[in-house]
Amino acid sequence: AHGRVDLTHGGGGRAMAQLVEELFIKAFDNPALNQRNDQAAFDVPAGRMVMTTDGYVISPLFFPGGDIGSLAVHGTVNDVAMAGAVPLSLSAGFIIEEGFPLADLKRIVDSMARASREAGVPVVTGDTKVVEKGKGDGIFITTAGIGMVPPGVEISGDKAQAGDAILISGTMGDHGVAVMSQRESLGFETDILSDSAALHTMVAEMIKTSPGIHVLRDPTRGGLAATLNEIATQSGIGMLIEENLVPVRPEVRGACELLGLDPLYVANEGKLICICAEADAEVVLAVMRAHPLGENAARIGTCRADSHHFVQMKTGMGGMRVVDWLAGEQLPRIC
Amino acid sequence: AHGRVDLTHGGGGRAMAQLVEELFIKAFDNPALNQRNDQAAFDVPAGRMVMTTDGYVISPLFFPGGDIGSLAVHGTVNDVAMAGAVPLSLSAGFIIEEGFPLADLKRIVDSMARASREAGVPVVTGDTKVVEKGKGDGIFITTAGIGMVPPGVEISGDKAQAGDAILISGTMGDHGVAVMSQRESLGFETDILSDSAALHTMVAEMIKTSPGIHVLRDPTRGGLAATLNEIATQSGIGMLIEENLVPVRPEVRGACELLGLDPLYVANEGKLICICAEADAEVVLAVMRAHPLGENAARIGTCRADSHHFVQMKTGMGGMRVVDWLAGEQLPRIC
Ligand SMILES: Nc1ncnc2c1ncn2[C@@H]1O[C@H](COP(=O)(O)OP(=O)(O)OP(=O)(O)O)[C@@H](O)[C@H]1O
Ligand SMILES: Nc1ncnc2c1ncn2[C@@H]1O[C@H](COP(=O)(O)OP(=O)(O)OP(=O)(O)O)[C@@H](O)[C@H]1O
Ligand SMILES: [Mg+2]
Ligand SMILES: [Mg+2]
Ligand SMILES: [Mg+2]
Ligand SMILES: [Mg+2]
Ligand SMILES: [Mg+2]
Ligand SMILES: [Mg+2]
Repeated sequence: AHGRVDLTHGGGGRAMAQLVEELFIKAFDNPALNQRNDQAAFDVPAGRMVMTTDGYVISPLFFPGGDIGSLAVHGTVNDVAMAGAVPLSLSAGFIIEEGFPLADLKRIVDSMARASREAGVPVVTGDTKVVEKGKGDGIFITTAGIGMVPPGVEISGDKAQAGDAILISGTMGDHGVAVMSQRESLGFETDILSDSAALHTMVAEMIKTSPGIHVLRDPTRGGLAATLNEIATQSGIGMLIEENLVPVRPEVRGACELLGLDPLYVANEGKLICICAEADAEVVLAVMRAHPLGENAARIGTCRADSHHFVQMKTGMGGMRVVDWLAGEQLPRIC
Repeated sequence: AHGRVDLTHGGGGRAMAQLVEELFIKAFDNPALNQRNDQAAFDVPAGRMVMTTDGYVISPLFFPGGDIGSLAVHGTVNDVAMAGAVPLSLSAGFIIEEGFPLADLKRIVDSMARASREAGVPVVTGDTKVVEKGKGDGIFITTAGIGMVPPGVEISGDKAQAGDAILISGTMGDHGVAVMSQRESLGFETDILSDSAALHTMVAEMIKTSPGIHVLRDPTRGGLAATLNEIATQSGIGMLIEENLVPVRPEVRGACELLGLDPLYVANEGKLICICAEADAEVVLAVMRAHPLGENAARIGTCRADSHHFVQMKTGMGGMRVVDWLAGEQLPRIC
């Protein structure tokens, strides 16, 4: 692909039809999309369905360990999976700035198609809009996803109970630090890769072993700290975690010190928090550790009764502090 | 709501949680969204499901007869309905530019909530991202929609046959001209309203009477001309339409002459094309005309065998011409 995206690529005429046909439909290639209708049709069984959406505005578009295309698949697959659901299909809406290089668009779409194929979740329908130069920022992608919850599974953020175990599937902060390392204005060099990955196969294993898991959630924007606070508020409980039990890569810890960030507040895109009954904790942890995406899974704490719904942390130094929603700087456009 | 959207509203911290809670969840209010999970859960019956998505980047955001919020509901409901499907639920991803007035955001969200309530299709899940000033254009909204196709209905763009009747549900060009009339640089005044509307109740009536309808499609970007060409290509047929049979409001015709546009190429957001067997044409037309959104429905032509898949038109002057995909100027950001 040569050249650049121009306004005719979003105009509803021949240029758009050609771009959709030769770039998008070719890359995403699947029976539902290939119908070329205003909507994709497919059969579903009766049951509990979930639906989710996320917009992706990450900057830069390409980062160590992924790009906006793979991220837009992983992130939305993960929000479906956090209900314990099996993802069925994705939609993808593209908003492209006039002048965007077609070669970059192709690279992103190919990466998205690869992530979709690897996850086994097809992009069945899409849309292409173009805005004038200066009215966007290269490319924004919004994906929606649907999936089916296996019978008997009832995972929800309001189901954590005092006494439940709090597990996480791996190291914290990798994605956010990998993206920050690419921002021109920061210009520090690291070998840290984003953890961007689709978690649904690990979740399926966890559910098979322990269908009674109470809560699953992926600690994306706001990191572990924000996500634990969300769950504590929703369930009306408190939590106690131990800083020393939270796995953080030494390189990530180092970069965070340099940037004045706390890894507990940095976004992840391939990690999950699991809250389950104490009796299930060991076996769920074992299942996570047996999966390639859960090698560094760890138990980090316990839920407890607390009318203030505080997330408390025993610090590395042995003190106690409240882990609030967001401390330190904002990290804009990390996803 | 006072003030402006800032980067913290997309940061994953307390400011975002508060905006989502007090603005979005309050306005869209429904059981699935109110679960406040990463995904919305609801029960579905077994059957044929459809999924669709559209990004909305319209400029200006407010126009006679609607705004980006109502449009984002109507447009996606319509793409679901064009399969003959009953819309079930919507997702909504917001990409907001830093500095956008909260009062405008509230106006848009309220309008979107009203359109969703009136259509009976809830917004069950959403997402909120904020980009820096100068990296967006006020607000972009991407909605996805799902729905269920009634048993026995098999509507698709590849099902038009030689001899089929071509019907449209009303006047052409109202939406595009209403939006163009608001563009500052054009500065002409009209009373033309956008036709933006949800067509699923009219489609339900049509399907009830004639479950064997072959094709439904809404003539959005590229207008009637582009959409007929799409269908002709997909079905491998030709078409013959009559210019004098295509309803166009006199004000729209006048504005088009002023702007050098052909109403056949101007976008609609509350109209549909229906292609059905000759034997069904009269009754389907009667059902459309009995619906408030189909008062001006008309038969405009007939499908025929043509290995070139040309859309031919008998012009008002009595001549014949090929109606190609897109003639004249582009109309960027009309939806
Ligand atoms: N970026 C994309 N990726 C995958 N498929 C796409 C993409 N853009 C469009 N499509 C597919 O192309 C076909 C036509 O899309 P298009 O957006 O023109 O239809 P529409 O939504 O009915 O029209 P409009 O967007 O003007 O309302 C659909 O099958 C759609 O799924
Ligand atoms: N604009 C919105 N309209 C309606 N609901 C929204 C909106 N933004 C967020 N929500 C809802 O708020 C909840 C939290 O959304 P959030 O985007 O923080 O979750 P997430 O997608 O898991 O996180 P992330 O976007 O960081 O990946 C969800 O229930 C979501 O549906
Ligand atoms: Mg998410
Ligand atoms: Mg579209
Ligand atoms: Mg999530
Ligand atoms: Mg559409
Ligand atoms: Mg989100
Ligand atoms: Mg359409």
